[in-house]
Amino acid sequence: MTLIKQLAPQDEFVGYYILRELAVKQTNGTPPKDYFDIVLGDSSGQLTAKYWDVSATDKETFFPMSLVKIRGIAHTYREKLQVKITKIRPVNEADGIALTDFIRSAPIRPVDLVHTIKNAMNSIADPDIAGIVSFCVGKVEEKLMHYPAAKTHHHAYFAGLAYHMVRMLEIGDFLCKQRPFLNPDLLKAGIILHDIAKPEEMISQLGIVSDYSVQGKLIGHISMASNWITEAAIRTGLDLESEKVMALQHLVLSHHNLGEWGSPVQPQTAEAVALHHIDALDAKLQMVEDALDTTPETEEWTPFIRGLENKAVYRLKI
Amino acid sequence: MTLIKQLAPQDEFVGYYILRELAVKQTNGTPPKDYFDIVLGDSSGQLTAKYWDVSATDKETFFPMSLVKIRGIAHTYREKLQVKITKIRPVNEADGIALTDFIRSAPIRPVDLVHTIKNAMNSIADPDIAGIVSFCVGKVEEKLMHYPAAKTHHHAYFAGLAYHMVRMLEIGDFLCKQRPFLNPDLLKAGIILHDIAKPEEMISQLGIVSDYSVQGKLIGHISMASNWITEAAIRTGLDLESEKVMALQHLVLSHHNLGEWGSPVQPQTAEAVALHHIDALDAKLQMVEDALDTTPETEEWTPFIRGLENKAVYRLKI
Amino acid sequence: MTLIKQLAPQDEFVGYYILRELAVKQTNGTPPKDYFDIVLGDSSGQLTAKYWDVSATDKETFFPMSLVKIRGIAHTYREKLQVKITKIRPVNEADGIALTDFIRSAPIRPVDLVHTIKNAMNSIADPDIAGIVSFCVGKVEEKLMHYPAAKTHHHAYFAGLAYHMVRMLEIGDFLCKQRPFLNPDLLKAGIILHDIAKPEEMISQLGIVSDYSVQGKLIGHISMASNWITEAAIRTGLDLESEKVMALQHLVLSHHNLGEWGSPVQPQTAEAVALHHIDALDAKLQMVEDALDTTPETEEWTPFIRGLENKAVYRLKI
Amino acid sequence: MTLIKQLAPQDEFVGYYILRELAVKQTNGTPPKDYFDIVLGDSSGQLTAKYWDVSATDKETFFPMSLVKIRGIAHTYREKLQVKITKIRPVNEADGIALTDFIRSAPIRPVDLVHTIKNAMNSIADPDIAGIVSFCVGKVEEKLMHYPAAKTHHHAYFAGLAYHMVRMLEIGDFLCKQRPFLNPDLLKAGIILHDIAKPEEMISQLGIVSDYSVQGKLIGHISMASNWITEAAIRTGLDLESEKVMALQHLVLSHHNLGEWGSPVQPQTAEAVALHHIDALDAKLQMVEDALDTTPETEEWTPFIRGLENKAVYRLKI
Amino acid sequence: MTLIKQLAPQDEFVGYYILRELAVKQTNGTPPKDYFDIVLGDSSGQLTAKYWDVSATDKETFFPMSLVKIRGIAHTYREKLQVKITKIRPVNEADGIALTDFIRSAPIRPVDLVHTIKNAMNSIADPDIAGIVSFCVGKVEEKLMHYPAAKTHHHAYFAGLAYHMVRMLEIGDFLCKQRPFLNPDLLKAGIILHDIAKPEEMISQLGIVSDYSVQGKLIGHISMASNWITEAAIRTGLDLESEKVMALQHLVLSHHNLGEWGSPVQPQTAEAVALHHIDALDAKLQMVEDALDTTPETEEWTPFIRGLENKAVYRLKI
Amino acid sequence: MTLIKQLAPQDEFVGYYILRELAVKQTNGTPPKDYFDIVLGDSSGQLTAKYWDVSATDKETFFPMSLVKIRGIAHTYREKLQVKITKIRPVNEADGIALTDFIRSAPIRPVDLVHTIKNAMNSIADPDIAGIVSFCVGKVEEKLMHYPAAKTHHHAYFAGLAYHMVRMLEIGDFLCKQRPFLNPDLLKAGIILHDIAKPEEMISQLGIVSDYSVQGKLIGHISMASNWITEAAIRTGLDLESEKVMALQHLVLSHHNLGEWGSPVQPQTAEAVALHHIDALDAKLQMVEDALDTTPETEEWTPFIRGLENKAVYRLKI
Repeated sequence: MTLIKQLAPQDEFVGYYILRELAVKQTNGTPPKDYFDIVLGDSSGQLTAKYWDVSATDKETFFPMSLVKIRGIAHTYREKLQVKITKIRPVNEADGIALTDFIRSAPIRPVDLVHTIKNAMNSIADPDIAGIVSFCVGKVEEKLMHYPAAKTHHHAYFAGLAYHMVRMLEIGDFLCKQRPFLNPDLLKAGIILHDIAKPEEMISQLGIVSDYSVQGKLIGHISMASNWITEAAIRTGLDLESEKVMALQHLVLSHHNLGEWGSPVQPQTAEAVALHHIDALDAKLQMVEDALDTTPETEEWTPFIRGLENKAVYRLKI
Repeated sequence: MTLIKQLAPQDEFVGYYILRELAVKQTNGTPPKDYFDIVLGDSSGQLTAKYWDVSATDKETFFPMSLVKIRGIAHTYREKLQVKITKIRPVNEADGIALTDFIRSAPIRPVDLVHTIKNAMNSIADPDIAGIVSFCVGKVEEKLMHYPAAKTHHHAYFAGLAYHMVRMLEIGDFLCKQRPFLNPDLLKAGIILHDIAKPEEMISQLGIVSDYSVQGKLIGHISMASNWITEAAIRTGLDLESEKVMALQHLVLSHHNLGEWGSPVQPQTAEAVALHHIDALDAKLQMVEDALDTTPETEEWTPFIRGLENKAVYRLKI
Repeated sequence: MTLIKQLAPQDEFVGYYILRELAVKQTNGTPPKDYFDIVLGDSSGQLTAKYWDVSATDKETFFPMSLVKIRGIAHTYREKLQVKITKIRPVNEADGIALTDFIRSAPIRPVDLVHTIKNAMNSIADPDIAGIVSFCVGKVEEKLMHYPAAKTHHHAYFAGLAYHMVRMLEIGDFLCKQRPFLNPDLLKAGIILHDIAKPEEMISQLGIVSDYSVQGKLIGHISMASNWITEAAIRTGLDLESEKVMALQHLVLSHHNLGEWGSPVQPQTAEAVALHHIDALDAKLQMVEDALDTTPETEEWTPFIRGLENKAVYRLKI
Repeated sequence: MTLIKQLAPQDEFVGYYILRELAVKQTNGTPPKDYFDIVLGDSSGQLTAKYWDVSATDKETFFPMSLVKIRGIAHTYREKLQVKITKIRPVNEADGIALTDFIRSAPIRPVDLVHTIKNAMNSIADPDIAGIVSFCVGKVEEKLMHYPAAKTHHHAYFAGLAYHMVRMLEIGDFLCKQRPFLNPDLLKAGIILHDIAKPEEMISQLGIVSDYSVQGKLIGHISMASNWITEAAIRTGLDLESEKVMALQHLVLSHHNLGEWGSPVQPQTAEAVALHHIDALDAKLQMVEDALDTTPETEEWTPFIRGLENKAVYRLKI
Repeated sequence: MTLIKQLAPQDEFVGYYILRELAVKQTNGTPPKDYFDIVLGDSSGQLTAKYWDVSATDKETFFPMSLVKIRGIAHTYREKLQVKITKIRPVNEADGIALTDFIRSAPIRPVDLVHTIKNAMNSIADPDIAGIVSFCVGKVEEKLMHYPAAKTHHHAYFAGLAYHMVRMLEIGDFLCKQRPFLNPDLLKAGIILHDIAKPEEMISQLGIVSDYSVQGKLIGHISMASNWITEAAIRTGLDLESEKVMALQHLVLSHHNLGEWGSPVQPQTAEAVALHHIDALDAKLQMVEDALDTTPETEEWTPFIRGLENKAVYRLKI
Repeated sequence: MTLIKQLAPQDEFVGYYILRELAVKQTNGTPPKDYFDIVLGDSSGQLTAKYWDVSATDKETFFPMSLVKIRGIAHTYREKLQVKITKIRPVNEADGIALTDFIRSAPIRPVDLVHTIKNAMNSIADPDIAGIVSFCVGKVEEKLMHYPAAKTHHHAYFAGLAYHMVRMLEIGDFLCKQRPFLNPDLLKAGIILHDIAKPEEMISQLGIVSDYSVQGKLIGHISMASNWITEAAIRTGLDLESEKVMALQHLVLSHHNLGEWGSPVQPQTAEAVALHHIDALDAKLQMVEDALDTTPETEEWTPFIRGLENKAVYRLKI
């Protein structure tokens, strides 16, 4: 089977793909005819495709985010590669194909990522802090198994959010050893809580964010997490004015560092300063790694990366 | 009795004043002698003063924010007017002097301001919204009787916060009549809640803010109010995900309009857009009115006003 | 008759519309054929349309901004709704159709808006100020009957400029009562004059701005109005250096508040501060109201609104 | 006679100086005594000085901006050089001293500068343009003989404004020859008019700006000049809408290039682009030349120069 | 022969042109057919063209940047003029056509420009400075004969870089005469060196930049030139810490003036301040001149010019 | 002996201190008398001190940065603690006092820091890269034993630069293990080279920067290091255009990330992105640690820290 990122103009091919997007459209002729405007996907990338002469049955058979077997031909249209589909059918059980094979995903199994996060949570020595973290994780535990960390910015794939947390926890562990003045309980809690409300801020399926939720737009994940900590403190019987509640809310509220990046307050505790920079370090390096991974080895330069001052990254030959 | 803003160089005078600031210092001589470095205040302004040759008794008699009767002489020192105190004693009951006569204050009695705010609160038709507002007002009701709206920016005097709310409620009423698409319940609630956590963000006595609280610096009044709404919803049994809770939190979170001004989200409902602009309009016009009021009539220009792009205001002769 | 905002794919329909734009183009075939590339409009919105096989007569019959009766079919082209016109003829008198029924317009009759503005002008007590206002209004009186307040930003429809003035005058009246330190003559004059040169800055027909004038680009409406005040003072025999002329020019020059928004000076009189904030309040709230009005009731969110930090507005269900 | 910039600690000296500033102050003793707080000036710089034990006669004898003969001693106070005056008397005719010898001044005689400007004005071929320029120059002709170009930014000395114009005219002449597509009439007019209202924007004596005028703050020199062009056009019978009037107003209005630098429109004609860059080139190079000239030759670095991104300039030894 | 900027819809024409871009594409039909997507160029401008029904031979005959003779017809497609090519053949010797006649070019012959630059270089009195300049010019001497000064910003045509240098040298000469405190050796050297590494920063053919080099992106022309000066100093035996080497590197490093424009240090010598402003003046005026030259005389406005705050320039009728 | 940070008003004390600053000044009396204006220092902090009635011998005995034994009394002057010195003598050998005990210093011995850096350098596998690093380190090896990393920003103490490098190398090691796509040779080289020219950019003694060098101001440490790499490549016979030279120069040039922070190019290789974020993480955390360390334990808040958005850091009690 041909991976999408290996297709070249004039290739004829057969394979299994996911219909990442599918819309019924009409040609400009008289009378206009229906056709499918499709975005095909697999684990290696995605590509626009057309399926002409759509029948009434077709329109009831094919849906976005479902798997199909297709026969097609690649060609160039307006300087971009495109696929003309000549045959298409839904995947059936006999094909033995799993949906998750066709999407980009963190390089570690979600179940292992969540296991690592829970281990970190359980290693928090202070029971009040552990209780708040546990309450908040409980709200999104199921979604942690598949949510991305962002729509496009970084870790934008299946279980990307949990992967981001796990790598940050590793860096946090190292820094607490290197600099004993940092409080490991607070830093772990901050890492786990900082993006904990993202699964409620975004609407996502299979690692692909389709939109932000109304809550996400009107409140934002930073204030949502702050509110969750208030709720957690009430539910676990903690004083809302206590230094612990305040320290955790401060970690979450300040982790974007500047007002123009969404933080209503700036980092003013040691752990809050650490959290912001661990977050930036992990996110930026993952952007670079992912961009290099998904750019053909023959290309010297990745595409422009918005989160890196919109610069491309050069693949050194050293 | 001579008002501070009427003193001129060489004036000898007797009168009652408040000791807004008082510090014991030492002269640079050998041996060094103690003296009082004082900021005298009355309702018209404030002025630096020195009281030399301080005795041990004096140091146990005089304290900041207490009233005194003094005899003094005004003179110019380093281009500024200053007072040399020649006689000083604490005010006693026989003097019949009240502390609040000596501080800058809103032009309406605090009790009337709070009454107006409560009337507005009681006029909110939706019981869920009214319940949240009532819970939050309950947290700071006593402080509303005297807190300023800011440290220096605007309404920085006794009961300034309540005065700011009342004037905004008047503008809000007018706008709801002019533009019926605005929801009066939400706008009233937004006006009352938008700065409701300021009394916990700042530490203030007699309308003078001495500092921000730790909560104020690490969480900020905007996020504190958002957390209070969460708490109010739990206490009053409201669904935390309900549109009403979200709408109120959005009003509070977005009222500074931009991230760089402290709002983690931007106004995205009709009432949130209205709230931001009513807040700005009232604050800026009050800055102008207060600056003109406290500048001698003989001066064409007020001092520079930070909140007005650091411009002075010209007193037109039309 | 079907309103444009009610059309759905596959609808066949007949109705009266305005040709907001019309261009003769050629197909890519051999030989190329002429066709009309059209933007149809009515009071509810606008839509792209094509009329194929254009005859020589057609090209002399149909012109932009004229009314037509058409038969057409709606379909989807490149993800957008489009109309294919099958029959078209000019409107004739027997149809009994008026051009102004087909354009977006202020909700109050232009004649009433201008009447209100003139009443405000006549209520200015100071004859010198009234004289300058009257001279400037005289320059654009006819255009006030139909000019929009901006190309797209806000009040971008028939008589939008006059509507903006009238609503601002209402707010100004309220504020002068609430805050007697404001001078009503100056505030009224400022409101009427602040955008008075817009009809010469923009080229507009039927409430639709097609471009900025050369004067508009090289001088700008703010400086044009300032020059007009100079002209008015000369014509009415006022001293050019008088405080009144200066106050009016300052109101106009400063009303955009900041240099980067086009104001060469910042507001430095009480009325100039008020004017800027009244302008902002009215413009922003009108953007919200208009966006909600022109978005189908079934949509939760309006389109992005450039003047509101490019945010969409959410239609609360409270 | 000792020049101010040659004074060193412990120098005793006698000489003629100007009293750039003089204030009567009082010592902090009991009883306080009067003294003069003085800024001495000569053509080489300025220095703080004190004159103790001021008599009643002294207070009626000495005034700011008058010439005196003094005996004094230089010493260091708070890390700065200061003068203690031991003897002081007003200059009398017998001394044969001229005020203008004691102030910083353009290196060319004012009468010659104004002559050059008038020659340029008279060389404008287009009579309409020449008429407008002549009218505006007429408004400030006398002040051109001594006004500086700015308070501190550049050319901040006697006849600095005229000197700035003359040097710009030289650059303009060169550029018109190098690039014949530039219109010399417009460029000359733009150079003469661009800062023509500065003498009314600032209050200045002997090349020293003490403040901005009310007009200067509320209207600004850019809009004042634009209004003057309107006035000139009316007085000389030119059509206010003519391309010539518009071109001249555009030159003036756009010469600060950006809104945040005070220009309500940006340069959009060839000559306006040229004018802005000639203005910047001349102002910046003059700042450098003046800073190097007034910094002792033994210093490698000039003081920080605000107009050069607040950088100091290094005196190369090449 | 018809110049590109004179073509109008429906024109049939024959002429010689350069194939500025040529791509083989496929139609969307079944089976897809090959066609050429072409950008035709001549000295007056450029235009999109299509050549349908491309044969196998055609694909081996026609290449980008080669000259062809074509027969074609102009028509409007999606509101833009386009050419349909009906006949095409390569130019042969008999046609007597030179490639350089078909590209935009500086108005002075490259050989003369380079001659002028070398004269300036040879007029540098200081042999150390002259040696460094000579070494650096030697690195790109051949490319100076044809490289543009930028991709699109300014002087973006054949020999544009050398033309930019020559015009700046003229301005520099004038300024050194007007202001003798400037060091002519340093200013000449700065002008010649400031963009000397551009030919290695960009990849260009016939005055058209196709991309930036890897060096160009990772090091940038400013730091490349600084490194070249280090190399030159080593090769010519100069002390790397000498004031001359430092002065030249400072000129190059600071000539973009601000960090956000690419300069790691800001101008801090007289000549560095001059260099930046001469560069800006020449670049901006050339943008204006070129925009006016390449806009049809009948157009009042040029297209928007990115380097001029994205403003268009108005062609005054004075 | 009393540490400076333990002194309180009225304390009389005897001890050894360093004269961080010493200036001879004169009193304002008649005749003026000489006195020493001193900044005393020890490892815990610094304090202003005065020594009155300075003799001619004193002026030849005491110098900045020398050790003294003093007797003094602490008192408050203008709200700040100050010392009045009553007795002072130079330290002699018998006192057994070492200069380095009196300055702030990295917590690891310089010799060990430099040893670690050299180990890292020697572990670079690629001999070309190792050669360049070795050449550059060789230029400043001696100064690495004591130079700070910055004037005030971070690591502003004895051997602070080497300490910064060592901690960054530790983080780099960890990241290369966590993310094998990073090249350890390049990252080590980048860490060692990124600030390698700082000892030539700044003038420093005993960990205290007194000024920037002329090279430092005109070229800056970033471009200086880039030039050194060019020099190193020439001296070690490497091709100046090789990918290795380019990669190292890119690391150095881009490590401040943005133009406004001094980098002429932005990070565009994986290691350059990592370098910038490791640098930021180490610098910011060290600022926090140092601020907490040097703030009395009884203080909740550190002073404002410029490099942390000018925020203070709160000492959590968790």
